[in-house]
Amino acid sequence: MPAFSRFTQLAESLPATVPFVGPETQERARGAEFAARLGANESGFGPAPSVIAAIAAAAELSWRYCDPENHDLRMALSAHLGLPPEAIVVGEGIDGLLGLVVRLIVERDTPVVTSLGAYPTFNFHVVGHGGRLVTAPYLDDREDLNALIDLAERETAPLVYVSNPDNPTGSCAHADSIVALARALPATTMLVLDEAYCEMAPQDSVPAIGDLAGMPNVIRFRTFSKVYGLAGLRVGYAFGDPDTMSRFHRVRNHFGVTRIGQVAALAALADQDWLTSVIGRVARARDRLSDIARANGLVPLVSAANFVAMDCGDDQRARAILSGLVGHGVFIRMPGVAPLNRLIRVSTGPDAELDVFSDRLSEVVATIDS
Amino acid sequence: MPAFSRFTQLAESLPATVPFVGPETQERARGAEFAARLGANESGFGPAPSVIAAIAAAAELSWRYCDPENHDLRMALSAHLGLPPEAIVVGEGIDGLLGLVVRLIVERDTPVVTSLGAYPTFNFHVVGHGGRLVTAPYLDDREDLNALIDLAERETAPLVYVSNPDNPTGSCAHADSIVALARALPATTMLVLDEAYCEMAPQDSVPAIGDLAGMPNVIRFRTFSKVYGLAGLRVGYAFGDPDTMSRFHRVRNHFGVTRIGQVAALAALADQDWLTSVIGRVARARDRLSDIARANGLVPLVSAANFVAMDCGDDQRARAILSGLVGHGVFIRMPGVAPLNRLIRVSTGPDAELDVFSDRLSEVVATIDS
Repeated sequence: MPAFSRFTQLAESLPATVPFVGPETQERARGAEFAARLGANESGFGPAPSVIAAIAAAAELSWRYCDPENHDLRMALSAHLGLPPEAIVVGEGIDGLLGLVVRLIVERDTPVVTSLGAYPTFNFHVVGHGGRLVTAPYLDDREDLNALIDLAERETAPLVYVSNPDNPTGSCAHADSIVALARALPATTMLVLDEAYCEMAPQDSVPAIGDLAGMPNVIRFRTFSKVYGLAGLRVGYAFGDPDTMSRFHRVRNHFGVTRIGQVAALAALADQDWLTSVIGRVARARDRLSDIARANGLVPLVSAANFVAMDCGDDQRARAILSGLVGHGVFIRMPGVAPLNRLIRVSTGPDAELDVFSDRLSEVVATIDS
Repeated sequence: MPAFSRFTQLAESLPATVPFVGPETQERARGAEFAARLGANESGFGPAPSVIAAIAAAAELSWRYCDPENHDLRMALSAHLGLPPEAIVVGEGIDGLLGLVVRLIVERDTPVVTSLGAYPTFNFHVVGHGGRLVTAPYLDDREDLNALIDLAERETAPLVYVSNPDNPTGSCAHADSIVALARALPATTMLVLDEAYCEMAPQDSVPAIGDLAGMPNVIRFRTFSKVYGLAGLRVGYAFGDPDTMSRFHRVRNHFGVTRIGQVAALAALADQDWLTSVIGRVARARDRLSDIARANGLVPLVSAANFVAMDCGDDQRARAILSGLVGHGVFIRMPGVAPLNRLIRVSTGPDAELDVFSDRLSEVVATIDS
């Protein structure tokens, strides 16, 4: 029989590419597990023991759908952030929430502004909804905020994406610059401020809640996937003006967050001692990764996140190092476009994994240079 | 500041309604938990002990993103169904997968055919993507398959929804009727066949895999939320022609299924003894619910699913009984539109919960009749 012919024109036009290939796919291709899993900015320090216990205790009630209002978690986040619960929407990770905000704002040919080489999953959503990506290149390995403002104005774009700290470079802007960006954007441009890594950043890089709270065209996105160590459970949240946030409820999958995810996130938020401890371990691992980079002739970029981007000099060398590491059991990633593609990106993790990275990097660099 | 003005026209047009209010919302309003939770067709028999153990064991690796290919689960489903893995897509419950198929096919004013009073979440997705619902009334508390075919032809609709067994009535069609439906529909109409409850139905109501496998315009949807007792973990799957199924990958949230959900579903699929035991318990609970209905002057409908719809005579009486039960700590639901709104729908569950239902129903009916 002939293929089904009634997919939308947009659906038919979409490429079959995916934002990321998972490490498991590479493991299946290699026929062996990675010895170090440092490519997805996960937290190898794991979730708190209190969270692991909460997950185990919640297992037997997995037969229940989640509370579609995510009430308890939203109330806890409300207290944590000092915002009314109506300002907060919980969703299936930042990825899921980005998909929703794109769906609410983007249709065929809508211009959307981001940095060239920034988060691919955001771009996947934009393309998936027919939007047109308009990009500003990175400037000195930072997002060029002024260029993003200019592009948003020139294109009359209703949506602009900024991450702070930035992924994949690890750089961060000062809080004042982010507030200035938000104020400089037209009221008709929504700022998607992705703060997935903000807990691990210098606190003067994170705008105070009140500094952006009154703006209907700003939504901030945070997650339990990074510092809280719950990437596999898909719980993120977004907050902003209550009227703006109310739109998510019209399109979100109301029962989409898992019940165990809600329980785990609530427990994670309550265990701020673990948070503090992980932040310290991330900082130490960043220092060690930077030392390892330097010892192997790479230049580590200063990072405000749970990974370190390492400058390999040029894209060919970066690709060779990445390929060598992956071939030797170390999962890392690298940005795909210039000028970022001279970098490899290595996530923080426990010392045992950094030991593996250090050893294999030395071998790979020696091989390449021989 | 004024509200953000650049949401799409479609987003602005959407109602703020939600498909379902969760029992937790009602519990917060009542100030007390329900004594019996029989409203969402969850499996109060729970997941298998082997699955609970698998979830607990997987908790500490929650820091890892899931395998975005859902490889292990798809391979297990492939063996289970006798289909190539390319024919199967795993997603965030049937709800999530329905959202994707709607997104792939529906745009502004696309006609979509379903039964009047069938699954509200499907309708939520259709409306959310700008589609136009075209409905056939139920006929003798069954989906009127011939009317659905006629509507699909008359409207040149690219999408038609059928559930077998049906929710909310519990009725089922014979497998031959479903196959005949699929063959009668134009090749330009996609049949969404929702089989969420099929494991608990008479097996002659479930078309053999091969009977529909060759058709690019048929997608079957199944879930771990019902008989497997994992509603809270959001794992469903869809299968059909590989070319058709490949379209999901262009729009799905690749990392959207939780890692624990993958582990749990894999364990659940492996524990077919538990499946058999739950199927038996569901059947016995259906019988008991039917007896309780009759003992209280209600007429139970024959059910192929894990719930029993009970005919209260008219909508006013059904609403009064539902309201009385909810007020007395029993969570159940009822369909919202005629002629189904003379029914209440009660999920199967352990005897202790059915005891509560039985007691409270007698009290409520006595109060209404006094």
